[in-house]
Amino acid sequence: MMPETEPSMRLLLLSNSGQEGFSWLGFWEKTMAGFLGAVREVLFIPFAAPSPDYDAYEKKLAMAFAPMGILVQGLHRCQQPLSAMERAEAIVVGGGNTHLLRRRLHDAKLLEPLSMYVKQGTPYLGWSAGANLACPTIATTNDMPIVDHGGLEALDLVPFQINPHYTDAHPPGHRGETRSERIQEYLTLHPRGRVLGLREGSGLLLQKTTLLAVGQKEVLLFTRKTPVTGLLLQENLSFLLEKPVRLLP
Amino acid sequence: MMPETEPSMRLLLLSNSGQEGFSWLGFWEKTMAGFLGAVREVLFIPFAAPSPDYDAYEKKLAMAFAPMGILVQGLHRCQQPLSAMERAEAIVVGGGNTHLLRRRLHDAKLLEPLSMYVKQGTPYLGWSAGANLACPTIATTNDMPIVDHGGLEALDLVPFQINPHYTDAHPPGHRGETRSERIQEYLTLHPRGRVLGLREGSGLLLQKTTLLAVGQKEVLLFTRKTPVTGLLLQENLSFLLEKPVRLLP
Repeated sequence: MMPETEPSMRLLLLSNSGQEGFSWLGFWEKTMAGFLGAVREVLFIPFAAPSPDYDAYEKKLAMAFAPMGILVQGLHRCQQPLSAMERAEAIVVGGGNTHLLRRRLHDAKLLEPLSMYVKQGTPYLGWSAGANLACPTIATTNDMPIVDHGGLEALDLVPFQINPHYTDAHPPGHRGETRSERIQEYLTLHPRGRVLGLREGSGLLLQKTTLLAVGQKEVLLFTRKTPVTGLLLQENLSFLLEKPVRLLP
Repeated sequence: MMPETEPSMRLLLLSNSGQEGFSWLGFWEKTMAGFLGAVREVLFIPFAAPSPDYDAYEKKLAMAFAPMGILVQGLHRCQQPLSAMERAEAIVVGGGNTHLLRRRLHDAKLLEPLSMYVKQGTPYLGWSAGANLACPTIATTNDMPIVDHGGLEALDLVPFQINPHYTDAHPPGHRGETRSERIQEYLTLHPRGRVLGLREGSGLLLQKTTLLAVGQKEVLLFTRKTPVTGLLLQENLSFLLEKPVRLLP
Protein backbone atom coordinates (compact mmCIF):
# COMPACT_ATOMS: atom_id res chain seq x y z
CA MET A 1 0.00 0.00 0.00
CA MET A 2 1.36 3.40 -0.93
CA PRO A 3 1.63 6.19 1.59
CA GLU A 4 -1.40 8.40 1.26
CA THR A 5 -0.19 11.73 2.60
CA GLU A 6 0.36 14.38 -0.02
CA PRO A 7 3.75 13.64 -1.65
CA SER A 8 5.04 17.20 -1.37
CA MET A 9 4.34 17.82 2.32
CA ARG A 10 7.00 18.88 4.80
CA LEU A 11 6.10 18.85 8.49
CA LEU A 12 7.99 19.22 11.76
CA LEU A 13 5.73 18.37 14.71
CA LEU A 14 7.17 18.78 18.20
CA SER A 15 5.92 17.83 21.64
CA ASN A 16 7.15 20.97 23.36
CA SER A 17 8.85 24.34 23.05
CA GLY A 18 10.60 24.79 26.40
CA GLN A 19 13.08 22.18 27.59
CA GLU A 20 15.10 21.91 30.82
CA GLY A 21 18.53 23.51 30.37
CA PHE A 22 17.72 25.32 27.10
CA SER A 23 16.37 28.73 26.10
CA TRP A 24 12.81 28.69 24.78
CA LEU A 25 12.78 26.51 21.60
CA GLY A 26 16.60 26.30 21.95
CA PHE A 27 16.52 22.52 22.26
CA TRP A 28 15.02 22.33 18.77
CA GLU A 29 17.18 24.98 17.09
CA LYS A 30 19.32 22.63 14.98
CA THR A 31 16.32 20.52 13.97
CA MET A 32 14.32 23.62 13.06
CA ALA A 33 17.21 25.20 11.14
CA GLY A 34 17.66 22.01 9.14
CA PHE A 35 13.95 21.80 8.45
CA LEU A 36 13.52 25.44 7.45
CA GLY A 37 16.67 25.45 5.29
CA ALA A 38 16.66 28.52 3.03
CA VAL A 39 13.47 30.00 4.55
CA ARG A 40 14.08 33.67 5.49
CA GLU A 41 10.67 34.54 6.99
CA VAL A 42 7.93 32.46 8.58
CA LEU A 43 4.25 33.22 9.02
CA PHE A 44 3.36 32.65 12.68
CA ILE A 45 -0.10 31.65 13.94
CA PRO A 46 -0.31 32.66 17.62
CA PHE A 47 -4.01 31.85 18.18
CA ALA A 48 -3.44 29.09 20.75
CA ALA A 49 -2.35 31.72 23.30
CA PRO A 50 -5.12 32.29 25.87
CA SER A 51 -3.91 35.86 26.34
CA PRO A 52 -4.90 38.11 23.42
CA ASP A 53 -1.41 39.67 23.46
CA TYR A 54 -0.37 38.06 20.18
CA ASP A 55 2.30 40.72 19.66
CA ALA A 56 4.14 39.47 22.73
CA TYR A 57 3.99 35.87 21.48
CA GLU A 58 5.24 36.98 18.06
CA LYS A 59 8.15 38.87 19.65
CA LYS A 60 9.07 35.85 21.75
CA LEU A 61 9.28 33.74 18.60
CA ALA A 62 11.21 36.45 16.74
CA MET A 63 13.81 36.37 19.55
CA ALA A 64 14.06 32.59 19.33
CA PHE A 65 14.39 32.62 15.51
CA ALA A 66 16.85 35.53 15.35
CA PRO A 67 19.95 33.30 15.83
CA MET A 68 18.86 31.35 12.71
CA GLY A 69 18.51 34.61 10.76
CA ILE A 70 14.78 33.98 10.22
CA LEU A 71 12.16 36.73 10.48
CA VAL A 72 8.70 36.23 11.99
CA GLN A 73 5.44 37.72 10.72
CA GLY A 74 2.38 37.23 12.95
CA LEU A 75 -0.80 36.24 11.12
CA HIS A 76 -2.82 38.45 13.52
CA ARG A 77 -1.17 41.52 11.93
CA CYS A 78 -1.96 40.53 8.35
CA GLN A 79 -4.75 42.49 6.67
CA GLN A 80 -5.25 39.66 4.23
CA PRO A 81 -4.58 36.40 6.05
CA LEU A 82 -5.39 34.22 3.04
CA SER A 83 -2.87 35.82 0.76
CA ALA A 84 -0.33 35.90 3.62
CA MET A 85 -0.76 32.13 3.89
CA GLU A 86 -0.48 31.70 0.15
CA ARG A 87 2.76 33.71 0.01
CA ALA A 88 4.31 32.23 3.19
CA GLU A 89 7.70 30.53 2.83
CA ALA A 90 6.79 28.42 5.89
CA ILE A 91 4.03 28.40 8.50
CA VAL A 92 4.63 28.06 12.25
CA VAL A 93 1.82 27.22 14.70
CA GLY A 94 2.64 27.83 18.35
CA GLY A 95 1.44 26.01 21.45
CA GLY A 96 -1.16 27.07 23.99
CA ASN A 97 -4.73 25.80 24.15
CA THR A 98 -5.73 23.50 21.29
CA HIS A 99 -9.49 24.09 21.66
CA LEU A 100 -8.93 27.82 21.38
CA LEU A 101 -6.53 27.50 18.43
CA ARG A 102 -9.01 25.32 16.53
CA ARG A 103 -11.92 27.62 17.35
CA ARG A 104 -10.18 30.80 16.27
CA LEU A 105 -9.03 29.33 12.96
CA HIS A 106 -12.50 27.87 12.42
CA ASP A 107 -14.23 31.20 13.12
CA ALA A 108 -11.83 32.99 10.77
CA LYS A 109 -12.50 30.30 8.10
CA LEU A 110 -8.78 29.60 7.91
CA LEU A 111 -8.66 25.87 8.72
CA GLU A 112 -9.29 24.62 5.19
CA PRO A 113 -6.99 27.09 3.42
CA LEU A 114 -4.22 26.33 5.92
CA SER A 115 -4.58 22.60 5.30
CA MET A 116 -4.56 23.19 1.56
CA TYR A 117 -1.41 25.33 1.45
CA VAL A 118 0.52 22.86 3.61
CA LYS A 119 -0.63 19.95 1.45
CA GLN A 120 0.58 21.90 -1.57
CA GLY A 121 4.05 22.10 -0.05
CA THR A 122 4.35 25.04 2.37
CA PRO A 123 6.51 23.71 5.23
CA TYR A 124 4.57 23.47 8.55
CA LEU A 125 6.23 23.65 11.96
CA GLY A 126 4.08 23.17 15.06
CA TRP A 127 4.60 22.31 18.69
CA SER A 128 2.14 21.16 21.32
CA ALA A 129 -1.25 22.57 20.19
CA GLY A 130 0.36 23.17 16.79
CA ALA A 131 1.22 19.44 16.58
CA ASN A 132 -2.31 18.44 17.64
CA LEU A 133 -3.72 20.68 14.91
CA ALA A 134 -1.84 18.77 12.19
CA CYS A 135 -3.79 15.57 13.00
CA PRO A 136 -7.16 14.41 11.64
CA THR A 137 -8.83 15.74 14.81
CA ILE A 138 -7.81 17.46 18.04
CA ALA A 139 -9.32 14.56 20.03
CA THR A 140 -6.01 13.61 21.67
CA THR A 141 -5.04 17.00 23.10
CA ASN A 142 -4.37 17.30 26.84
CA ASP A 143 -5.84 20.78 26.97
CA MET A 144 -8.79 21.91 29.02
CA PRO A 145 -11.84 22.78 26.85
CA ILE A 146 -11.84 26.40 28.03
CA VAL A 147 -13.83 27.33 24.91
CA ASP A 148 -16.00 25.33 22.54
CA HIS A 149 -13.69 24.02 19.81
CA GLY A 150 -16.55 24.26 17.30
CA GLY A 151 -15.85 20.70 16.08
CA LEU A 152 -12.95 18.30 16.49
CA GLU A 153 -11.83 18.18 12.84
CA ALA A 154 -8.35 19.58 12.29
CA LEU A 155 -5.87 19.98 9.41
CA ASP A 156 -5.67 16.24 8.62
CA LEU A 157 -2.07 16.49 7.44
CA VAL A 158 -1.11 13.08 8.86
CA PRO A 159 -3.31 9.99 9.17
CA PHE A 160 -2.69 9.45 12.90
CA GLN A 161 -3.24 11.28 16.17
CA ILE A 162 -0.55 12.91 18.31
CA ASN A 163 -0.51 13.22 22.08
CA PRO A 164 2.10 15.86 22.97
CA HIS A 165 3.76 16.19 26.41
CA TYR A 166 3.28 12.44 26.83
CA THR A 167 4.16 11.32 30.34
CA ASP A 168 4.01 8.12 32.40
CA ALA A 169 4.05 10.14 35.62
CA HIS A 170 1.15 9.68 38.01
CA PRO A 171 1.24 11.52 41.33
CA PRO A 172 0.78 9.18 44.33
CA GLY A 173 -2.83 9.17 45.59
CA HIS A 174 -4.12 10.82 42.41
CA ARG A 175 -7.22 9.03 41.09
CA GLY A 176 -7.67 10.83 37.79
CA GLU A 177 -6.82 8.85 34.64
CA THR A 178 -3.20 8.31 33.61
CA ARG A 179 -2.25 9.60 30.17
CA SER A 180 -2.07 6.08 28.80
CA GLU A 181 -5.57 5.35 30.18
CA ARG A 182 -6.88 8.45 28.42
CA ILE A 183 -5.34 7.31 25.13
CA GLN A 184 -6.84 3.84 25.61
CA GLU A 185 -10.25 5.50 26.15
CA TYR A 186 -9.77 7.25 22.81
CA LEU A 187 -8.94 3.91 21.18
CA THR A 188 -11.99 2.26 22.78
CA LEU A 189 -14.13 4.70 20.84
CA HIS A 190 -11.90 4.76 17.74
CA PRO A 191 -10.75 1.14 17.50
CA ARG A 192 -8.82 1.64 14.25
CA GLY A 193 -7.08 4.78 15.48
CA ARG A 194 -3.35 5.18 16.08
CA VAL A 195 -1.95 7.63 18.61
CA LEU A 196 1.68 8.72 18.77
CA GLY A 197 2.75 9.77 22.25
CA LEU A 198 5.49 12.42 22.06
CA ARG A 199 7.43 12.77 25.30
CA GLU A 200 9.11 16.11 26.07
CA GLY A 201 12.04 16.35 23.66
CA SER A 202 10.32 14.19 21.03
CA GLY A 203 9.07 15.12 17.59
CA LEU A 204 8.19 13.89 14.12
CA LEU A 205 9.72 14.98 10.84
CA LEU A 206 7.85 14.33 7.59
CA GLN A 207 9.71 15.06 4.36
CA LYS A 208 7.55 14.03 1.41
CA THR A 209 6.99 10.28 2.01
CA THR A 210 9.52 9.76 4.79
CA LEU A 211 8.49 10.02 8.42
CA LEU A 212 11.15 10.00 11.15
CA ALA A 213 11.14 10.36 14.93
CA VAL A 214 13.44 13.23 15.94
CA GLY A 215 14.70 14.67 19.23
CA GLN A 216 16.09 12.84 22.20
CA LYS A 217 13.56 10.13 22.97
CA GLU A 218 11.67 7.29 21.36
CA VAL A 219 8.10 7.92 20.22
CA LEU A 220 5.31 5.72 21.60
CA LEU A 221 2.71 4.17 19.30
CA PHE A 222 -0.64 3.28 20.89
CA THR A 223 -3.18 1.08 19.11
CA ARG A 224 -6.15 -0.97 20.28
CA LYS A 225 -4.48 -4.28 19.43
CA THR A 226 -1.01 -3.45 20.73
CA PRO A 227 -1.36 -1.07 23.67
CA VAL A 228 2.10 0.46 23.30
CA THR A 229 5.17 0.10 21.07
CA GLY A 230 8.38 2.15 21.31
CA LEU A 231 9.52 3.62 17.96
CA LEU A 232 13.18 4.46 17.83
CA LEU A 233 14.83 7.71 16.79
CA GLN A 234 15.73 7.77 13.11
CA GLU A 235 13.58 4.66 12.53
CA ASN A 236 11.60 4.91 9.28
CA LEU A 237 8.00 5.34 10.38
CA SER A 238 6.54 5.65 6.91
CA PHE A 239 4.17 2.73 7.58
CA LEU A 240 2.23 5.23 9.71
CA LEU A 241 1.43 7.28 6.61
CA GLU A 242 -0.99 4.65 5.33
CA LYS A 243 -4.49 5.81 6.06
CA PRO A 244 -6.60 3.61 8.34
CA VAL A 245 -10.39 3.77 8.17
CA ARG A 246 -11.34 6.58 10.49
CA LEU A 247 -14.41 6.60 12.69
CA LEU A 248 -15.55 9.73 14.44
CA PRO A 249 -18.50 8.92 16.74
CA MET B 1 -28.02 39.58 47.15
CA MET B 2 -30.02 36.39 47.60
CA PRO B 3 -28.68 33.02 46.53
CA GLU B 4 -29.99 32.26 43.07
CA THR B 5 -29.84 28.48 42.90
CA GLU B 6 -33.23 26.77 43.07
CA PRO B 7 -34.25 26.72 46.75
CA SER B 8 -35.21 23.02 46.79
CA MET B 9 -32.04 21.56 45.27
CA ARG B 10 -29.95 18.90 46.95
CA LEU B 11 -26.56 18.08 45.46
CA LEU B 12 -23.55 16.03 46.49
CA LEU B 13 -20.63 16.66 44.11
CA LEU B 14 -17.44 14.66 44.68
CA SER B 15 -13.97 14.84 43.18
CA ASN B 16 -13.42 11.10 43.02
CA SER B 17 -14.84 7.63 43.59
CA GLY B 18 -11.79 5.54 44.48
CA GLN B 19 -9.58 6.57 47.38
CA GLU B 20 -6.36 5.03 48.77
CA GLY B 21 -7.17 2.52 51.55
CA PHE B 22 -10.90 2.30 50.81
CA SER B 23 -13.14 0.11 48.67
CA TRP B 24 -14.57 1.86 45.60
CA LEU B 25 -16.76 4.77 46.85
CA GLY B 26 -16.13 3.47 50.40
CA PHE B 27 -14.46 6.73 51.45
CA TRP B 28 -17.73 8.54 50.75
CA GLU B 29 -20.12 5.97 52.25
CA LYS B 30 -21.11 7.93 55.37
CA THR B 31 -21.47 11.17 53.43
CA MET B 32 -23.56 9.48 50.74
CA ALA B 33 -25.73 7.66 53.29
CA GLY B 34 -26.42 10.93 55.10
CA PHE B 35 -27.19 12.68 51.83
CA LEU B 36 -29.47 9.95 50.47
CA GLY B 37 -31.30 9.49 53.80
CA ALA B 38 -34.50 7.52 53.22
CA VAL B 39 -33.84 6.91 49.50
CA ARG B 40 -34.25 3.16 48.74
CA GLU B 41 -33.35 3.16 45.03
CA VAL B 42 -31.29 5.47 42.83
CA LEU B 43 -31.37 6.00 39.09
CA PHE B 44 -27.82 5.64 37.77
CA ILE B 45 -26.49 7.36 34.62
CA PRO B 46 -23.43 5.38 33.44
CA PHE B 47 -22.85 7.22 30.14
CA ALA B 48 -19.43 8.62 31.07
CA ALA B 49 -17.94 5.14 30.78
CA PRO B 50 -15.93 4.81 27.55
CA SER B 51 -16.70 1.09 27.48
CA PRO B 52 -20.28 0.41 26.37
CA ASP B 53 -20.61 -2.25 29.12
CA TYR B 54 -23.00 -0.17 31.21
CA ASP B 55 -24.32 -3.30 32.95
CA ALA B 56 -20.88 -3.84 34.49
CA TYR B 57 -20.75 -0.23 35.73
CA GLU B 58 -24.27 -0.56 37.16
CA LYS B 59 -23.30 -3.78 38.99
CA LYS B 60 -20.20 -2.13 40.41
CA LEU B 61 -22.35 0.66 41.83
CA ALA B 62 -24.95 -1.82 43.13
CA MET B 63 -22.16 -3.59 45.08
CA ALA B 64 -20.98 -0.29 46.53
CA PHE B 65 -24.50 0.79 47.51
CA ALA B 66 -25.58 -2.62 48.93
CA PRO B 67 -24.15 -1.93 52.44
CA MET B 68 -26.40 1.16 52.61
CA GLY B 69 -29.42 -0.95 51.59
CA ILE B 70 -29.90 1.13 48.44
CA LEU B 71 -30.80 -0.42 45.07
CA VAL B 72 -29.43 0.81 41.73
CA GLN B 73 -31.34 1.07 38.46
CA GLY B 74 -29.28 1.86 35.35
CA LEU B 75 -30.82 4.48 33.04
CA HIS B 76 -29.51 2.50 30.04
CA ARG B 77 -31.99 -0.29 30.89
CA CYS B 78 -35.01 2.02 31.13
CA GLN B 79 -37.47 1.81 28.23
CA GLN B 80 -38.74 5.28 29.11
CA PRO B 81 -35.83 7.31 30.42
CA LEU B 82 -37.87 10.48 30.91
CA SER B 83 -40.43 8.88 33.18
CA ALA B 84 -37.64 6.99 34.98
CA MET B 85 -36.05 10.37 35.73
CA GLU B 86 -39.35 11.84 36.80
CA ARG B 87 -40.02 8.96 39.21
CA ALA B 88 -36.44 8.67 40.53
CA GLU B 89 -35.94 9.06 44.29
CA ALA B 90 -32.41 10.26 43.54
CA ILE B 91 -30.13 10.45 40.49
CA VAL B 92 -26.48 9.34 40.47
CA VAL B 93 -24.08 10.31 37.67
CA GLY B 94 -20.85 8.30 37.58
CA GLY B 95 -17.38 9.35 36.46
CA GLY B 96 -15.55 8.55 33.23
CA ASN B 97 -15.17 10.89 30.28
CA THR B 98 -17.04 14.19 30.60
CA HIS B 99 -17.15 14.92 26.85
CA LEU B 100 -18.73 11.51 26.24
CA LEU B 101 -21.21 11.88 29.12
CA ARG B 102 -22.34 15.28 27.86
CA ARG B 103 -22.58 14.07 24.25
CA ARG B 104 -24.64 10.98 25.08
CA LEU B 105 -27.11 12.91 27.24
CA HIS B 106 -27.30 15.62 24.55
CA ASP B 107 -27.96 13.09 21.76
CA ALA B 108 -30.67 11.41 23.88
CA LYS B 109 -32.20 14.86 24.59
CA LEU B 110 -31.89 14.19 28.32
CA LEU B 111 -29.79 17.17 29.46
CA GLU B 112 -32.66 19.62 29.91
CA PRO B 113 -35.06 17.17 31.60
CA LEU B 114 -32.28 16.05 33.96
CA SER B 115 -31.53 19.64 34.91
CA MET B 116 -35.24 20.31 35.43
CA TYR B 117 -35.90 17.34 37.70
CA VAL B 118 -32.89 18.12 39.88
CA LYS B 119 -33.91 21.79 40.12
CA GLN B 120 -37.36 20.59 41.19
CA GLY B 121 -35.82 18.67 44.08
CA THR B 122 -34.59 15.22 42.99
CA PRO B 123 -31.30 14.69 44.86
CA TYR B 124 -28.26 14.55 42.56
CA LEU B 125 -25.06 12.72 43.42
CA GLY B 126 -22.14 12.92 40.99
CA TRP B 127 -18.41 12.33 41.08
CA SER B 128 -15.69 13.41 38.67
CA ALA B 129 -17.46 13.75 35.26
CA GLY B 130 -20.74 13.71 37.22
CA ALA B 131 -19.54 16.73 39.22
CA ASN B 132 -18.41 18.55 36.06
CA LEU B 133 -21.84 17.98 34.54
CA ALA B 134 -23.56 19.84 37.39
CA CYS B 135 -21.77 23.09 36.44
CA PRO B 136 -22.83 25.75 33.92
CA THR B 137 -20.46 24.17 31.36
CA ILE B 138 -18.00 21.27 31.18
CA ALA B 139 -15.21 23.72 30.31
CA THR B 140 -13.14 22.84 33.41
CA THR B 141 -12.97 19.08 32.95
CA ASN B 142 -9.56 17.38 32.80
CA ASP B 143 -10.78 14.82 30.31
CA MET B 144 -9.48 14.25 26.81
CA PRO B 145 -11.99 15.27 24.10
CA ILE B 146 -12.21 11.71 22.74
CA VAL B 147 -15.57 12.59 21.17
CA ASP B 148 -17.18 15.89 20.22
CA HIS B 149 -19.10 17.07 23.29
CA GLY B 150 -21.70 18.68 21.03
CA GLY B 151 -21.52 21.93 23.02
CA LEU B 152 -20.08 22.88 26.42
CA GLU B 153 -23.36 23.74 28.16
CA ALA B 154 -24.16 21.43 31.06
CA LEU B 155 -26.83 21.11 33.78
CA ASP B 156 -26.21 24.56 35.27
CA LEU B 157 -27.18 23.43 38.78
CA VAL B 158 -24.57 25.62 40.47
CA PRO B 159 -23.29 29.04 39.35
CA PHE B 160 -19.59 28.10 39.43
CA GLN B 161 -17.24 25.65 37.72
CA ILE B 162 -15.68 22.57 39.32
CA ASN B 163 -12.28 21.09 38.57
CA PRO B 164 -12.24 17.55 39.99
CA HIS B 165 -9.06 15.57 40.81
CA TYR B 166 -7.35 18.89 41.46
CA THR B 167 -3.62 18.46 42.00
CA ASP B 168 -0.56 20.65 42.51
CA ALA B 169 1.70 17.86 41.31
CA HIS B 170 3.90 18.55 38.30
CA PRO B 171 6.33 15.85 37.19
CA PRO B 172 9.93 17.12 36.94
CA GLY B 173 10.89 18.04 33.35
CA HIS B 174 7.24 18.04 32.24
CA ARG B 175 6.48 21.14 30.14
CA GLY B 176 2.72 20.78 29.79
CA GLU B 177 0.59 23.23 31.77
CA THR B 178 0.05 22.73 35.51
CA ARG B 179 -3.54 22.32 36.60
CA SER B 180 -3.56 25.77 38.13
CA GLU B 181 -2.21 27.25 34.85
CA ARG B 182 -5.05 25.56 32.98
CA ILE B 183 -7.61 27.04 35.37
CA GLN B 184 -5.99 30.47 34.98
CA GLU B 185 -6.31 30.09 31.19
CA TYR B 186 -10.02 29.43 31.70
CA LEU B 187 -10.27 32.57 33.83
CA THR B 188 -8.39 34.62 31.22
CA LEU B 189 -11.21 33.86 28.81
CA HIS B 190 -13.97 33.98 31.44
CA PRO B 191 -12.82 36.83 33.71
CA ARG B 192 -15.88 36.71 35.95
CA GLY B 193 -15.80 32.94 36.34
CA ARG B 194 -15.14 31.07 39.56
CA VAL B 195 -13.58 27.61 39.62
CA LEU B 196 -13.60 25.30 42.63
CA GLY B 197 -10.68 22.88 42.66
CA LEU B 198 -11.65 19.64 44.41
CA ARG B 199 -8.66 17.59 45.50
CA GLU B 200 -9.04 13.83 45.88
CA GLY B 201 -11.20 13.31 48.97
CA SER B 202 -12.96 16.66 48.54
CA GLY B 203 -16.57 17.38 47.73
CA LEU B 204 -19.41 19.89 47.93
CA LEU B 205 -22.78 19.42 49.60
CA LEU B 206 -25.66 21.70 48.66
CA GLN B 207 -28.81 21.41 50.76
CA LYS B 208 -31.30 24.03 49.61
CA THR B 209 -29.45 27.33 50.18
CA THR B 210 -26.52 25.99 52.19
CA LEU B 211 -23.29 24.98 50.47
CA LEU B 212 -20.59 23.17 52.45
CA ALA B 213 -17.20 21.66 51.62
CA VAL B 214 -17.15 17.99 52.69
CA GLY B 215 -14.54 15.23 52.80
CA GLN B 216 -11.03 15.39 54.12
CA LYS B 217 -9.50 18.43 52.49
CA GLU B 218 -10.09 22.12 51.92
CA VAL B 219 -11.58 23.22 48.61
CA LEU B 220 -9.68 25.72 46.45
CA LEU B 221 -11.39 28.75 44.93
CA PHE B 222 -9.80 30.24 41.81
CA THR B 223 -10.82 33.64 40.47
CA ARG B 224 -9.16 36.14 38.15
CA LYS B 225 -8.67 38.72 40.91
CA THR B 226 -7.55 36.32 43.64
CA PRO B 227 -5.69 33.45 42.01
CA VAL B 228 -6.38 30.96 44.81
CA THR B 229 -8.14 30.87 48.19
CA GLY B 230 -8.48 27.84 50.49
CA LEU B 231 -12.04 27.24 51.70
CA LEU B 232 -12.24 25.20 54.88
CA LEU B 233 -14.29 22.09 55.58
CA GLN B 234 -17.68 22.89 57.09
CA GLU B 235 -17.23 26.56 56.16
CA ASN B 236 -20.46 28.09 54.84
CA LEU B 237 -19.82 28.64 51.13
CA SER B 238 -23.25 30.00 50.31
CA PHE B 239 -21.71 33.22 48.90
CA LEU B 240 -20.75 31.05 45.92
CA LEU B 241 -24.42 30.52 45.09
CA GLU B 242 -24.81 34.10 43.92
CA LYS B 243 -24.75 34.14 40.15
CA PRO B 244 -21.95 36.10 38.47
CA VAL B 245 -22.40 37.36 34.92
CA ARG B 246 -21.32 34.48 32.71
CA LEU B 247 -19.48 34.87 29.44
CA LEU B 248 -19.09 31.98 27.05
CA PRO B 249 -16.86 33.04 24.15
